[in-house]
Amino acid sequence: MEVLAYRPDPSEFAWTFGGARPIRTIKPGTILELWTEDAFGGKVRGPEDLVSRVIQFPFVNPQTGPFAVEGAEPGDTLALHFVSIEPSRDWAASTTIPLFGSLTSTPTTAGLQDPLPEKIWMYEVDAKRRTVTYRALRGEHSVELPLDPMHGTVGVAPANLETRLSLVPGHYGGNMDTPEMRAGTTCYLGVNVEGAMFSLGDGHCRQGEGESCGVAVEAAMDTVVVVDLLKGVATPWPRLENETHVMSVGSARPLEDAFRIAQVDLIQLMADQLGLDRLDAYQLLTQAAETPIANVVDPNYSVVTKIRKTYLPRRDLYGGAHARSVEMGRSYLAERR
Amino acid sequence: MEVLAYRPDPSEFAWTFGGARPIRTIKPGTILELWTEDAFGGKVRGPEDLVSRVIQFPFVNPQTGPFAVEGAEPGDTLALHFVSIEPSRDWAASTTIPLFGSLTSTPTTAGLQDPLPEKIWMYEVDAKRRTVTYRALRGEHSVELPLDPMHGTVGVAPANLETRLSLVPGHYGGNMDTPEMRAGTTCYLGVNVEGAMFSLGDGHCRQGEGESCGVAVEAAMDTVVVVDLLKGVATPWPRLENETHVMSVGSARPLEDAFRIAQVDLIQLMADQLGLDRLDAYQLLTQAAETPIANVVDPNYSVVTKIRKTYLPRRDLYGGAHARSVEMGRSYLAERR
Amino acid sequence: MEVLAYRPDPSEFAWTFGGARPIRTIKPGTILELWTEDAFGGKVRGPEDLVSRVIQFPFVNPQTGPFAVEGAEPGDTLALHFVSIEPSRDWAASTTIPLFGSLTSTPTTAGLQDPLPEKIWMYEVDAKRRTVTYRALRGEHSVELPLDPMHGTVGVAPANLETRLSLVPGHYGGNMDTPEMRAGTTCYLGVNVEGAMFSLGDGHCRQGEGESCGVAVEAAMDTVVVVDLLKGVATPWPRLENETHVMSVGSARPLEDAFRIAQVDLIQLMADQLGLDRLDAYQLLTQAAETPIANVVDPNYSVVTKIRKTYLPRRDLYGGAHARSVEMGRSYLAERR
Amino acid sequence: MEVLAYRPDPSEFAWTFGGARPIRTIKPGTILELWTEDAFGGKVRGPEDLVSRVIQFPFVNPQTGPFAVEGAEPGDTLALHFVSIEPSRDWAASTTIPLFGSLTSTPTTAGLQDPLPEKIWMYEVDAKRRTVTYRALRGEHSVELPLDPMHGTVGVAPANLETRLSLVPGHYGGNMDTPEMRAGTTCYLGVNVEGAMFSLGDGHCRQGEGESCGVAVEAAMDTVVVVDLLKGVATPWPRLENETHVMSVGSARPLEDAFRIAQVDLIQLMADQLGLDRLDAYQLLTQAAETPIANVVDPNYSVVTKIRKTYLPRRDLYGGAHARSVEMGRSYLAERR
Repeated sequence: MEVLAYRPDPSEFAWTFGGARPIRTIKPGTILELWTEDAFGGKVRGPEDLVSRVIQFPFVNPQTGPFAVEGAEPGDTLALHFVSIEPSRDWAASTTIPLFGSLTSTPTTAGLQDPLPEKIWMYEVDAKRRTVTYRALRGEHSVELPLDPMHGTVGVAPANLETRLSLVPGHYGGNMDTPEMRAGTTCYLGVNVEGAMFSLGDGHCRQGEGESCGVAVEAAMDTVVVVDLLKGVATPWPRLENETHVMSVGSARPLEDAFRIAQVDLIQLMADQLGLDRLDAYQLLTQAAETPIANVVDPNYSVVTKIRKTYLPRRDLYGGAHARSVEMGRSYLAERR
Repeated sequence: MEVLAYRPDPSEFAWTFGGARPIRTIKPGTILELWTEDAFGGKVRGPEDLVSRVIQFPFVNPQTGPFAVEGAEPGDTLALHFVSIEPSRDWAASTTIPLFGSLTSTPTTAGLQDPLPEKIWMYEVDAKRRTVTYRALRGEHSVELPLDPMHGTVGVAPANLETRLSLVPGHYGGNMDTPEMRAGTTCYLGVNVEGAMFSLGDGHCRQGEGESCGVAVEAAMDTVVVVDLLKGVATPWPRLENETHVMSVGSARPLEDAFRIAQVDLIQLMADQLGLDRLDAYQLLTQAAETPIANVVDPNYSVVTKIRKTYLPRRDLYGGAHARSVEMGRSYLAERR
Repeated sequence: MEVLAYRPDPSEFAWTFGGARPIRTIKPGTILELWTEDAFGGKVRGPEDLVSRVIQFPFVNPQTGPFAVEGAEPGDTLALHFVSIEPSRDWAASTTIPLFGSLTSTPTTAGLQDPLPEKIWMYEVDAKRRTVTYRALRGEHSVELPLDPMHGTVGVAPANLETRLSLVPGHYGGNMDTPEMRAGTTCYLGVNVEGAMFSLGDGHCRQGEGESCGVAVEAAMDTVVVVDLLKGVATPWPRLENETHVMSVGSARPLEDAFRIAQVDLIQLMADQLGLDRLDAYQLLTQAAETPIANVVDPNYSVVTKIRKTYLPRRDLYGGAHARSVEMGRSYLAERR
Repeated sequence: MEVLAYRPDPSEFAWTFGGARPIRTIKPGTILELWTEDAFGGKVRGPEDLVSRVIQFPFVNPQTGPFAVEGAEPGDTLALHFVSIEPSRDWAASTTIPLFGSLTSTPTTAGLQDPLPEKIWMYEVDAKRRTVTYRALRGEHSVELPLDPMHGTVGVAPANLETRLSLVPGHYGGNMDTPEMRAGTTCYLGVNVEGAMFSLGDGHCRQGEGESCGVAVEAAMDTVVVVDLLKGVATPWPRLENETHVMSVGSARPLEDAFRIAQVDLIQLMADQLGLDRLDAYQLLTQAAETPIANVVDPNYSVVTKIRKTYLPRRDLYGGAHARSVEMGRSYLAERR
């Protein structure tokens, strides 16, 4: 078992998918112990640290990576299994950002109204009790919400010669902002360039589906990932697998196109890997899909479509890659104890 | 406890929200024992009964109702609590329909491609084992899915002098097609005309979120509803409440507008009924909302936004209307045993 | 030549398409001399007459009609040829309306920002010089714009048992808000109910394409229309014809669907009436279409697609109905002189 | 007058905006005599040259450039004035491309229907008679359409560290596909990186508004451009100016967002450069804008909003940059004669 620990210096952050030099080259099968900074570069630490004051756009959402994977070529699939994702500080932050979010006009859904006020909500993180504490800015309401750590951003270099800012989700993954990207999940990403060049960041202590104001409970994370490479298997859009479900994540505008992408991709997966007729898969998904919205705030919106693996003819998707990674994660955790 | 049983004759179906004469006038507090025909008028009974052959559009999705509620006036809220929803036959049907559904061009998302093939999937319904059985048309795959009965369509007469076909969801409810409309749920609808004029139909033995091919596991239903009237409380968009969650349902195109409506409505509910500041509610929803898509196939698309009631400052929404209706439902069920 | 003059009393206005009793029954071939009130019911007459103060929603956009046409049945086409449209007063009004318009959040594109200020711009109308005068509220800018009178709203009763508010455009016409609806144009509308039940209103002295703030230069109009009935010819979406162009108007959300509808409808027209192969028509339209946006503010958005008649294999669309109506209009004008 | 002629070798084409090395560095004020290859790299020359056969994606839509402009820095504006755009061959080509175009499902508006047939239409170009000849593939229809040469693609390197494929339009210009980009027009683009790095290509002998099948009358072009640099003036979205109109081009999905961007940008231009109040500008645009759709096929859709310069308080936008470039173009043409 090859284990590599890596904690980037601020000068080593990546800000894009594609267009960045790899900070390490690793072998398939490596387990990575990573640290990721929060989306604000750690600069929002209290109610005065307005994003418009402390962040110099576009230097937001720093990525840990990219990592080059030996032997990865276009047409392969990278499988990233999250063994653990744990907040590395006892606080986290959320904010409104002027002209960003789903319930305000933005530079693209352009309008003439005044922006909403810029505010900051600080959260206490209690990793033992598995809670984050929300406090209203006006009035008395406070509530402990379950800690449910995840990565908003996981991706590889895009296809088609492009370089995308780390805020953008797409066929290469990126800033999908789905709470499904939690420990126990395997994320499948199609390889578009030699070495795949994956990176991750944007830890959230938790996030509602839709991430409506555009900013989750943002936190630095200590994350353990098993990296696997599946040769000769293509993955057109990001797919996730956990103990119970297989999922696809579509990212596009308008939101119905994100839905359509995820649905068609999951149907294609059932046709390619399980031999189901496409219309039969369409019917099954119609009755059995769960489709939580991921985000309605990023340059592309994201929708997850999920189906229980028990509803499928077989469960060994991608040749059982998820089960293998789970096993590796267990061995790693057993050794560490 | 006033109990009214009503089983419509086919000549009594309503096909619209608004524009139909009430088939009964009831008092607030009445418990209704209703039968609803399936969306196909019961005409799709086997693999030859193609919708394009047996249905004369627009006579699809028949509604049981409308019921006039004594004393209901614009500005009030109607609360419909589903005590039970049970399939009244041991079979159910789903189909593709040419140029209808989310993964095909349609008359509005117009295109030049040939339509998908028209097919029928028949389901066996086992009310005791609580299952419906899916069978692929090609190949061998078959699977028992959990029975999870719901109404796709529940609504009142619309505002603004309009009459809408029963296929359309909107501010008045209608064809929202969300699996959340199951037994145990209270549906709040704003009253737009005297008597409210509510009706319901479109029973589904189950439905995936998004209802991608446009047709769920369609079935006739025996349904028990507690009807309550909340005077002087407005409800701009349909809201749902069950033991754990409060929800809002937005219906619009594009899909992000359905999301926006549901989010803003839930924020407004928190502001109006719980005293939360609107920006504080926006923040809380950003971290705590669940947002399953309901449908991406109807003339308006529908999105549900939900929040756990334990995350709210208080749980007595609408003055505790849900708890009261639950209690009435329990008394009714106790008496029937 | 049968000529009927009709000027509605305020109590006779229609507020919907469908659901209203005909105020007159006319024969095909009748020439109507109509008066239409402005969209505000004539109540916005100066800078103090804020819409939110003087209008009781939904009583906005009054229609002159509906007229029942003898012999009109579903499957036929009604052809309305505008001989003249002339402002009946020497002033006109435009306004902003809170949470209405394309550059603000609205009840469906819902948000949390404060509404834009509510303001009124009064215009001087000079029918002789053919101008309307714009004056900025702040600063000195004033400019004479060409008078270009049109009807924002022309429609028949909808299909599918529906009644729609006069603010809504759709397959039945309605509030399309396109500047192409000017004198010299023939509007073809598919008949959905016996008698067709057409009405019109919402005169604009002029309007930009998109009608971005949602309110044009609103004015009462004196309008002369030739009414023709084309038996046994279907028209799925509104089509317009003038001396140079044939057009289709799609109305839907999102805006690309309005575009798609108009394009597919024009292709279908070329296939059905001119014998062009659908892919050949698609290619020709790709190179030759003009596609001005009509409105991005109404419950459905509208897009016009136009093609020059000289680019088509033949010009006798609808059996030369436009030319016949033009001729009737000329005779009428000649007699009146 | 500095004149630079440049004809790229196929090995010198750029395929992206951003991420490419400049092929020349030029001084502001230079006049460029350029040759651009057609979007197919000149490979579609007859009915057998199907795009799916002759093009290796993503090597489509080759750009001539990028050119670095001395002294150009972020916050400046590049003004590109088209003196002439002339087809360099006597033929041009258009095609359908599987799963590309506005009237078919695509990889993002994903669906399950079969793709449309792949076909090729060849056009004869007669530069003297100023025509291109369309011929239907089925049946006899043929028609001469006016030659109206334009560039579909004109752009600079994007902001935010990104590299975009030449098929994508955005704030940096790119593949806007508007027929307004013809000779006599000045295109203003905000500078995002040192040197601006502009390139152009994708000549069309003509194009309908919307470019519905996704492929115009594609042709290689000989183009003369005056390059000007406006220091210290920002341009957030592409703006165009010709003798009669000033325009803004928004690119986004859904299409209404492209409309909103163009409208707000033109309002902002009127506020910043002409001193009009923003609400007054909103009102003026509502009554006076022309808004032709540019494309509904590219990764972002594009909409043009135009206003006649005679309706504005002043005509010296950008300090009279357009008039200066027109003058330079006239001198150049006079010298060449």
